[in-house]
Amino acid sequence: SENLGSTDPLLDNEAVQAVRHTYPPGSESGMHSHDYPFRVVYVLEGGTAEIVPQDSTKATRTITFKEGMTMYVPAATHNVRNVGETQIRLLEIELKP
Amino acid sequence: SENLGSTDPLLDNEAVQAVRHTYPPGSESGMHSHDYPFRVVYVLEGGTAEIVPQDSTKATRTITFKEGMTMYVPAATHNVRNVGETQIRLLEIELKP
Repeated sequence: SENLGSTDPLLDNEAVQAVRHTYPPGSESGMHSHDYPFRVVYVLEGGTAEIVPQDSTKATRTITFKEGMTMYVPAATHNVRNVGETQIRLLEIELKP
Repeated sequence: SENLGSTDPLLDNEAVQAVRHTYPPGSESGMHSHDYPFRVVYVLEGGTAEIVPQDSTKATRTITFKEGMTMYVPAATHNVRNVGETQIRLLEIELKP
């Protein structure tokens, strides 16, 4: 069965929804969609991840997350897989339109 | 002279401005104003801080920041002083209306 990471809900109000994802080595998010147009992602703990789009015609990307990296990311449907040796922790702040 | 903390710019676009503040023990932000109506604050490293409003008729508050605390905070003008023994690091994401 899938080795799923975990998600801590942090804040959810009219403007934002903030969660923290924790992916031990070898774990993954499972295929999921993001509900809001854009979100801010801040890397709390870095590592190497594969981003596998649901749309199999799109390429899987390997990304090296470094602590402190801050990204502004559009909605997508994908699976995030920790293919590295270190735990990955991401803060995700969805911006509600 | 003031012992000021430091600020790393992380992201600035049409929707958000993200910065990371680092306050060693005994440092402070200096009196400053926040430009946008609301921001999300996430505690990267915790400690004890005093929040000193510019308006001296308002009370100074002591706040214990704990790692992972997430707050949704209205604009204010204040000085943040690290009165504890540990370095405080705050991620601040200003939401642009």
